[in-house]
Amino acid sequence: MARLQLMTAYKEELALTDLHALFRQIVDVESVSGREHHLADLVEQALSGCPHLEVLRQGNTIVARTDLGRSQRVIIAGHLDTVPVAGNLPSRLEERDGRAFLVGRGTADMKGGVAVALHLAHALTTPVHDVTWVFYECEEIEATANGLGRVAQTHPDWLAGDFAVLMEPTGARIEGGCQGTTRFRLTTHGTAAHSARSWLGHNAIHELTDLLETIRAYPVREAVEVEGLVFREGLNATIVSGGVAGNVIPDTAELYVNYRFAPDLAADDAIAAMRRAFERPGVDFEVLDLSPGARPGLDRPAAREFCAAVGGEPRPKYGWTDVARFSALGVPAVNYGPADAGKAHADDECCPLDDLDATRDALITWLTPEERS
Amino acid sequence: MARLQLMTAYKEELALTDLHALFRQIVDVESVSGREHHLADLVEQALSGCPHLEVLRQGNTIVARTDLGRSQRVIIAGHLDTVPVAGNLPSRLEERDGRAFLVGRGTADMKGGVAVALHLAHALTTPVHDVTWVFYECEEIEATANGLGRVAQTHPDWLAGDFAVLMEPTGARIEGGCQGTTRFRLTTHGTAAHSARSWLGHNAIHELTDLLETIRAYPVREAVEVEGLVFREGLNATIVSGGVAGNVIPDTAELYVNYRFAPDLAADDAIAAMRRAFERPGVDFEVLDLSPGARPGLDRPAAREFCAAVGGEPRPKYGWTDVARFSALGVPAVNYGPADAGKAHADDECCPLDDLDATRDALITWLTPEERS
Repeated sequence: MARLQLMTAYKEELALTDLHALFRQIVDVESVSGREHHLADLVEQALSGCPHLEVLRQGNTIVARTDLGRSQRVIIAGHLDTVPVAGNLPSRLEERDGRAFLVGRGTADMKGGVAVALHLAHALTTPVHDVTWVFYECEEIEATANGLGRVAQTHPDWLAGDFAVLMEPTGARIEGGCQGTTRFRLTTHGTAAHSARSWLGHNAIHELTDLLETIRAYPVREAVEVEGLVFREGLNATIVSGGVAGNVIPDTAELYVNYRFAPDLAADDAIAAMRRAFERPGVDFEVLDLSPGARPGLDRPAAREFCAAVGGEPRPKYGWTDVARFSALGVPAVNYGPADAGKAHADDECCPLDDLDATRDALITWLTPEERS
Repeated sequence: MARLQLMTAYKEELALTDLHALFRQIVDVESVSGREHHLADLVEQALSGCPHLEVLRQGNTIVARTDLGRSQRVIIAGHLDTVPVAGNLPSRLEERDGRAFLVGRGTADMKGGVAVALHLAHALTTPVHDVTWVFYECEEIEATANGLGRVAQTHPDWLAGDFAVLMEPTGARIEGGCQGTTRFRLTTHGTAAHSARSWLGHNAIHELTDLLETIRAYPVREAVEVEGLVFREGLNATIVSGGVAGNVIPDTAELYVNYRFAPDLAADDAIAAMRRAFERPGVDFEVLDLSPGARPGLDRPAAREFCAAVGGEPRPKYGWTDVARFSALGVPAVNYGPADAGKAHADDECCPLDDLDATRDALITWLTPEERS
């Protein structure tokens, strides 16, 4: 702790062997999306000094991998970028209820996981599985910029493997897979008229009634078991708008709907189900985005070993994360990392230091069981 | 027509004896709401020269009345102001389908009626009923500025009478009374949550469903006979809004509703009915405005004579107009004036000149039947 408190801004070389110091160091290297180059340079430089790793780079995404000829390869990934700083850098240490926290932008989402991965990439020279470590850019902004997505498109072989761990904040518990999500816009149409003679018009807001009734009556599944985890779906109107003035019959109205579906449902099937439910004469149906879910893959041998090493009961992941990008490549993936997801993006974003230790220890147990036993 | 085409801007004295010339003259004296003083001065000056009239003034509202000791008194009223000019002044003459129109701001709403009233206030020295002529300010803006409303508050005796004619544009047909109107806002409440875990929240947009169903099921009356006219009510959502983002369960949503009710229903009863229909736990009910309707009063002797003089079948007035101010004073009132209401406020606002003649002739037949017979 004393040493950690003396750390301030980054140094030109990462303290790979001291997890807590390393954590604070990379938190204090500001790396808002699009400006990750300095942190990426430091990561590349640090990993290039490890003789057991092959280091690859695309943009500000760094991939480092062992080549030990193991029968299985696992991927451990984290993103380097953060949402914009809100007066919460440099980081500060705080004690809360007897636990030590590092507080500041990126501590929860997700430089704690990045620190653990960097520390172990350096330390684990002979893991039981070959490991591909991925540190990528631009996770917090538009999907087209996402470094993991770009590598998946241009160098899918860099991401080949049997199982992946994405070090998103989960409070050091396994959250398996993720649900799919689609957003679509329903537009109703009518005929404008003065509200004093409303029968000369046709009210587009009134046409929303059936659509809202359909949402409320839709049979979303409350318990869907997929590879050992139970997911819960949701179908919700998120935005509604329509009308121009208090005395005009509105000729158009819009309803935005978000459907979160369990990962046993393919994205195309999810959209088809929504079209069956909502498409009707006079209603425009426009898909705004569609992201497939990810199966947790907890029945795979490497995943079972991982679950045993971490302990506890894996939970389903409801929110969409980049694990779905692995799933799309045929690599089952889970979320697992230090810090509470509820603190992600918060002004008082923080990570308990003991979560770092627990995460590190679990990964060591998984990847070098002979050293731990 | 030749003389009319030579008229350009106003002169310092109104041409009271020439209806078409007078009409063009007062159209070309710009009098947007709040800037009626010049036109009001001209009106006051012209009427003060009529020995059979007593002239009163409050602000830019001019009242002129006979005092012949007749058993009945009728009121003929029009507003001097217009909505803002839109490049449509000075006025121009146009022939359309063989009819001569004056085109420009205020021609329809409602300087045609004002011209007829001014012309007749000067000409009819011995009408069969005593007549109170009213030329008032600020009809097109907020209700508190309305000149007729202000006189009703401060000098209700100036508006005493048995029957009133408001010279709003009706295409020279009688439109009786007017419907009441109220606007209210319904606000639903929920609990915000991330849409990936929607069951942790409560969706305020979904709570609109019952309210919209209530609107659609509400028994609005499609044919309500009131003093010889049949009114048709309407209940409509006019504006809907709610939601902040495509991945957030909304914690509030708003629905604006407009109820137009037949003039047999008192304003308080209309609001009470709306409260019974829409008030429920979790929904805020807020009245935004409430304007009572006006009974047409076509069963009164002066009204029956008026209908006979005008001819044709009186229609109900659906939109709210200042006739309701007379109704509130106990004076039944109808709308009757030249020009098509559909052209009011339009950039190509216009009035056919033969509507002026028809309106003038009907009022003369009503008020001086012995001279016409």
